[in-house]
Amino acid sequence: MANNFVESITDMEVDFAQWYTDIVKKAELADYSGIKGCMVIRPAGYAIWENIQKELDRRFKETGVENCYLPMFIPEGLLNKEKDHVAGFAPEVAWVTHGGSEPLQERMCVRPTSETLFCDLYAHIVQSYRDLPKVYNQWCSVVRWEKTTRPFLRSMEFLWQEGHTAHATAKEAEERTIQMLNIYTKFCEEFLAIPMICGRKTDKEKFAGAEATYTIEALMHDGKALQSGTSHNFGDGFAKAFNIQYTDKENKLQYVHQTSWGVSTRLIGAVIMVHGDNSGLVLPPLLAPVQVAIIPIQQKKEGVLTKAYELKEKLSAFRVKVDDSDKSPGFKFAEQEIRGIPFRVEIGPKDIANNQAVIVRRDTREKIVVSLDELEETIAKLIPLMQKEMLARARAHRDAHTYSAVTMQQLKETAETKPGFIKAMWCGDVACEEKIKEEAGLSSRCMPFANETLSETCVCCGKKAKALVYWGKAY
Amino acid sequence: MANNFVESITDMEVDFAQWYTDIVKKAELADYSGIKGCMVIRPAGYAIWENIQKELDRRFKETGVENCYLPMFIPEGLLNKEKDHVAGFAPEVAWVTHGGSEPLQERMCVRPTSETLFCDLYAHIVQSYRDLPKVYNQWCSVVRWEKTTRPFLRSMEFLWQEGHTAHATAKEAEERTIQMLNIYTKFCEEFLAIPMICGRKTDKEKFAGAEATYTIEALMHDGKALQSGTSHNFGDGFAKAFNIQYTDKENKLQYVHQTSWGVSTRLIGAVIMVHGDNSGLVLPPLLAPVQVAIIPIQQKKEGVLTKAYELKEKLSAFRVKVDDSDKSPGFKFAEQEIRGIPFRVEIGPKDIANNQAVIVRRDTREKIVVSLDELEETIAKLIPLMQKEMLARARAHRDAHTYSAVTMQQLKETAETKPGFIKAMWCGDVACEEKIKEEAGLSSRCMPFANETLSETCVCCGKKAKALVYWGKAY
Repeated sequence: MANNFVESITDMEVDFAQWYTDIVKKAELADYSGIKGCMVIRPAGYAIWENIQKELDRRFKETGVENCYLPMFIPEGLLNKEKDHVAGFAPEVAWVTHGGSEPLQERMCVRPTSETLFCDLYAHIVQSYRDLPKVYNQWCSVVRWEKTTRPFLRSMEFLWQEGHTAHATAKEAEERTIQMLNIYTKFCEEFLAIPMICGRKTDKEKFAGAEATYTIEALMHDGKALQSGTSHNFGDGFAKAFNIQYTDKENKLQYVHQTSWGVSTRLIGAVIMVHGDNSGLVLPPLLAPVQVAIIPIQQKKEGVLTKAYELKEKLSAFRVKVDDSDKSPGFKFAEQEIRGIPFRVEIGPKDIANNQAVIVRRDTREKIVVSLDELEETIAKLIPLMQKEMLARARAHRDAHTYSAVTMQQLKETAETKPGFIKAMWCGDVACEEKIKEEAGLSSRCMPFANETLSETCVCCGKKAKALVYWGKAY
Repeated sequence: MANNFVESITDMEVDFAQWYTDIVKKAELADYSGIKGCMVIRPAGYAIWENIQKELDRRFKETGVENCYLPMFIPEGLLNKEKDHVAGFAPEVAWVTHGGSEPLQERMCVRPTSETLFCDLYAHIVQSYRDLPKVYNQWCSVVRWEKTTRPFLRSMEFLWQEGHTAHATAKEAEERTIQMLNIYTKFCEEFLAIPMICGRKTDKEKFAGAEATYTIEALMHDGKALQSGTSHNFGDGFAKAFNIQYTDKENKLQYVHQTSWGVSTRLIGAVIMVHGDNSGLVLPPLLAPVQVAIIPIQQKKEGVLTKAYELKEKLSAFRVKVDDSDKSPGFKFAEQEIRGIPFRVEIGPKDIANNQAVIVRRDTREKIVVSLDELEETIAKLIPLMQKEMLARARAHRDAHTYSAVTMQQLKETAETKPGFIKAMWCGDVACEEKIKEEAGLSSRCMPFANETLSETCVCCGKKAKALVYWGKAY
């Protein structure tokens, strides 16, 4: 029974895309809905998102972020105010044209992102330097009319947070842009156990309307890159389009400088594709909605279930579930593995007689026989240990799949044969970026902050190189 | 300065509607947006919603509720599946007709509520009695095309939670319906300090598609009623329309029995209109995002600000803010009052010399001089005390504005001269309900659970009475 259950997941080496879909479905993270491209996030998936929200929100608020909520609709006239922005988003929005049975005078789109709405608000509520900075954020859903969709990775509607800030100076805006990128990076490493490459996007890849876009990029198990979060510095471009001005201390009118930054439910896709294995999901213990599954063995024997509940009480410092359903232990094991619950505690009559239990780690399958007197203490030690080791493994995998190329030939060969990041120098010319995309199938992921030089010349044209770029095939 | 600031709020006795609008604006709870009928919930308002969410969500989860997220769009065909439901909602939905530049084959509405989507999901994931009950909830925004809107009370888009459950038996569904209504009631009394009248809606007022709708009704300061939350028992009507069946233990196909229940940001409107006064908002201490505002007096004098921060540390068990801005103390007092912060702690050079501080309660204006050694302990006692007294005052106000009528003449006179609830007997006939609406301007609020009889006959037609009804003028 257990085996049947497990065998229904496609091996990732056979078909990674199908493996991903199987996990999403079998771990009950999400389901397709009746609306093409929209997903239902089921409780097991939503609980992961709730933990992401709680932890990120705490980190945001420590830096002075305040949450708010803006309307989900943007009138067409408002969307049109910043030229680059509307060009970037108008082709992929959903248009509301009727309210009840009446046609609208001006159609509205469902927000694909809310820069225009925040600008409208800031133009209204910012008057003096005393009103700055504004560091607002909202947790909401946004809609982008995507042709090809995959649960969590790319869907027509998705959940995210979008921070939007307004500052008195350009310097302050740049500092906030980087500060938020750093928060994302630390969060992903410490909480999701996913190491990130951080850097700046090329002009081709930057956000519509931004002066500079910074990104965190992760490497998935199949060697593809996933853009996992972005932070944008808008300079005063939006402020000029929306006329957001304040009087400074010398009573002069000045434009504000703005930023925006966001991460989405896509992070759940990253967790699946970085940590999952052929038995299912593997959740980092700090993230896991259920950290410990207590599975009674021979649960009908007297005292077994009582002991299982007793252990749950003992472990009340953690998020614990007793699986007391009438399924077989093997089935329960397989289910716990598919769902990625970090620790399984097996307790049966023999264990009880010996005052012990068996802990099984989800990631390594390591079995640890532990005295019941030391169960709590052992789990308390295993949580940070497993968390640390998962990050280390993900980092080792990424590093082992990060290559360098100094010639176009090397770049193409590596792209063809070795899935992963490829580092190569670039002249800064979009023509070379496009040629690399066309000939090697690689897009620029970012220009990392870490200063590194492979050669003096562009991998593509041979002219003087301006920056090292991480290239990759991306989701 | 302080006076000017306060005087800008209209007296509630002069113009209650304007008083409400002034508070929403001056306390920076919400702002109008560029989209007619949509509001921006500003940080001070959103923080109240976050506290409502956190506390309600905790209470939900204790009863086994699981959160999830369903798409915001409903295809027209899906909305049309349950006849009463579509008749109730279709006239007030926003229609999406285009994705990007292309017209949709089937238009979709933005969810006004998600019964149809949950039914679609349950039809898909419920097969066996083992899959039941499903007790799902989502926190999201919904859209209803309202003509007349007011911030928090009635807006085109609003935030809410909607719980949707599926059960094996009718009994279980009825129990869950009542259980959730009881959770709402207790939450409103304990956390918002608002007493509720609980009961069943008449057929005329029940939810489109429900077998029975239960409601919690509160009385606002101006004597109008506010429907504050509802819980619906759908029986198996939706299950039949959407074909949601499960095989029971005898392997027979059965329809599930369903419920739904929700409260919204409207609760913030209730808090304003039940507790607010002519100086601004008054927040119950358990709900308040900031519970204590420490306001330094003569803050430029040496040691004053240091002491203020020290007190903040001392009060770290509570939600505390030091107002160290360069405004005058009087201005800060007025601001704290407008924002409804429950306690103000004034600390100046003289207080420091005497090792004391002055606590001022927002609701009663009572000043309490307290030794700094007892500050924490005093606040810890004042929080539940103020919370309790606010509930008691709200209950006394409601009871003093609850009247009875046994004749139509009495009913009309009371409705005209005494704003409040009016209890009167009813025969159960919708014709009488409509006549009372027409002649006395009263709608039926609910048939309360508490068993009470005023007379044997209907207040309107004189026929045999079936139930006591609370009548009122409603928001």
